[in-house]
Amino acid sequence: MKTWKIKEQDLESIAIGAGILGTGGGGNPHVGKLMANRLLREGLDVEVVALNDVPDEWRICTVGGMGAPTVTIEKLPRGTESVGAVRALESHVGHRIDALIPAEIGGGNSIEPMIAAARMGIPIIDADGMGRAFPTLPMITYFIYSLSCFPCAVCDDKGNQIVYPSGVNVHWLERLTRSAAVEMGGHAACAVAYMSGADARRTAIAGTLSWAREIGEKVRGARQRHSDSIISEILSATDGTVLFEGKIVDVDRRTADGWVRGRVQMEGAQAYAGSEMTISFQNENLIAWRDGIVVATVPDLICIVNSDDGEPVTTEMLRYGYRVSVLGIPCSPKLRTPEALEVVGPRAFGYELAFQPLEDLA
Amino acid sequence: MKTWKIKEQDLESIAIGAGILGTGGGGNPHVGKLMANRLLREGLDVEVVALNDVPDEWRICTVGGMGAPTVTIEKLPRGTESVGAVRALESHVGHRIDALIPAEIGGGNSIEPMIAAARMGIPIIDADGMGRAFPTLPMITYFIYSLSCFPCAVCDDKGNQIVYPSGVNVHWLERLTRSAAVEMGGHAACAVAYMSGADARRTAIAGTLSWAREIGEKVRGARQRHSDSIISEILSATDGTVLFEGKIVDVDRRTADGWVRGRVQMEGAQAYAGSEMTISFQNENLIAWRDGIVVATVPDLICIVNSDDGEPVTTEMLRYGYRVSVLGIPCSPKLRTPEALEVVGPRAFGYELAFQPLEDLA
Repeated sequence: MKTWKIKEQDLESIAIGAGILGTGGGGNPHVGKLMANRLLREGLDVEVVALNDVPDEWRICTVGGMGAPTVTIEKLPRGTESVGAVRALESHVGHRIDALIPAEIGGGNSIEPMIAAARMGIPIIDADGMGRAFPTLPMITYFIYSLSCFPCAVCDDKGNQIVYPSGVNVHWLERLTRSAAVEMGGHAACAVAYMSGADARRTAIAGTLSWAREIGEKVRGARQRHSDSIISEILSATDGTVLFEGKIVDVDRRTADGWVRGRVQMEGAQAYAGSEMTISFQNENLIAWRDGIVVATVPDLICIVNSDDGEPVTTEMLRYGYRVSVLGIPCSPKLRTPEALEVVGPRAFGYELAFQPLEDLA
Repeated sequence: MKTWKIKEQDLESIAIGAGILGTGGGGNPHVGKLMANRLLREGLDVEVVALNDVPDEWRICTVGGMGAPTVTIEKLPRGTESVGAVRALESHVGHRIDALIPAEIGGGNSIEPMIAAARMGIPIIDADGMGRAFPTLPMITYFIYSLSCFPCAVCDDKGNQIVYPSGVNVHWLERLTRSAAVEMGGHAACAVAYMSGADARRTAIAGTLSWAREIGEKVRGARQRHSDSIISEILSATDGTVLFEGKIVDVDRRTADGWVRGRVQMEGAQAYAGSEMTISFQNENLIAWRDGIVVATVPDLICIVNSDDGEPVTTEMLRYGYRVSVLGIPCSPKLRTPEALEVVGPRAFGYELAFQPLEDLA
């Protein structure tokens, strides 16, 4: 089977790309990158396989961190949580897992499965279940497109394991796993979406790990060349557009119930002088208003990056005075179907707005 | 094997006896009694086996309700929770359970295992893990005397199942299962203490189901004879004593975090005229002060009963004007060892008091 190995410079690129695709959430990839780097230096391999090359009969699951990203800034993961969660799932189903697949390419959960896969000696799949980051389990394409969310396994840094063999639906699983993560200290690893290779090809968004790497490579290349056009370099790897440029002037942010929620306000500069932008978030950026007009909504990607070096600015890093660019990137077509928009559209987050594609709003 | 079958009149007696031994908590046995009665009328049997007759190699577990007793007054159990929890545990360990054993003889959790056992066609064991009721998992003798609390299974009325295959210790299991019960609506069934018959004989308190029945029979007999001496009838089935008689004049009660906590105050009558009593509780009655002097502490049993008919007054039923007798009953010697007192003594509940046996305080 054709695979490629992740190198240290790939990790650098993926961390930047995944940070941008995290649209503010998914957790900061920095700590995950350091952990993955250490594993590479210890001689472990992270092997990547393309979604199309995955055999039908492979047993696959996703694994990632669950909880408020703000928590992981102060409470670093131990690094054993993800393997613990996958092992608990394996024990429950009575089979070994052949490969891991990310639930979300955005943020730290792009790297977390690599760490577990390297430790377990199995590959990761170049795909994910969001093409971005989202705050809850029901928003993963595997579940939107009818795969069962049971069984699911959760493991914390202390060695507590929980298995959810069956239950009402993915919304109940979300409630129960999130309250467990809160009780476990605000962060835990969750292994879920036990599926076949064929299931993965039907429901996953392909090529997103390569995409994150490509975006990161553009940023790193532009930085090395001291290019002024880092933002347009990023956009060249996407179908995206610039929504705003300016300075953060206010941040309202609360961490509760395992989420970080709030809004950030910006004053325009350059082409946007005299304008203002407000972005609301729940772990991830949800809605962007420019001068009171909606210019982008979830599930399209609203990405805040440092205007100078293209570094992604995650929700927990937002603060007064940052000079940022706001990018809008169209989401995967798998997130724009009616069944997907019911789960990941603006109304699913409590906004009385119909989804309109970024391209139409511009 | 010698077994006895529970009849409707046994259920009546056990419900009264278990209510008294519940020392205010364990949940009101009334709903459980109605459910068990219906099963008997449908022709199902509840078979009881003595602890000494249990074969060494039997696989046993306990099952019971978890949550604040106040919740179950308004949110009746569906009746399928306990079987669901035991079935989830069976699936996890890969074996059928041969018999159920109560975790606590006090309150509704004396009857809950009968309902599950009758539905599953297996016997219950005449024994329990408290000889009374307590609010948390670590306070069960099975765990005090070193049996593992893993695996554990939880099931709610909606069909959500959770399995805890392994973890740090019983205190973490208590935290995780209780937060799950809160998330599930304040009440869930918990199957735990997977053990052998030999383990049960080493760690359980024997004969407590028969004891509850005997206490209840005394109460029912005295009621039928319109006896004035109902309180002394109750005490004749125990080594207990009257701690107070009087009227409830104040109740301070809060339901939070899956517990009901507070204190009740009484004014004395008859032999106790001019005296007052305060009893603090956390689901169960913990400490009794008469005129400011401690007269009984946990783990000894502090039981509040209606002075007229001997009916147990549970924590959630306490209210102004009730005329009650307060009984002190010595706990099982298994709860008075140093390792037990560390878990169930006054200090374990936050009181700066050393345990002194009821008999010495009197």
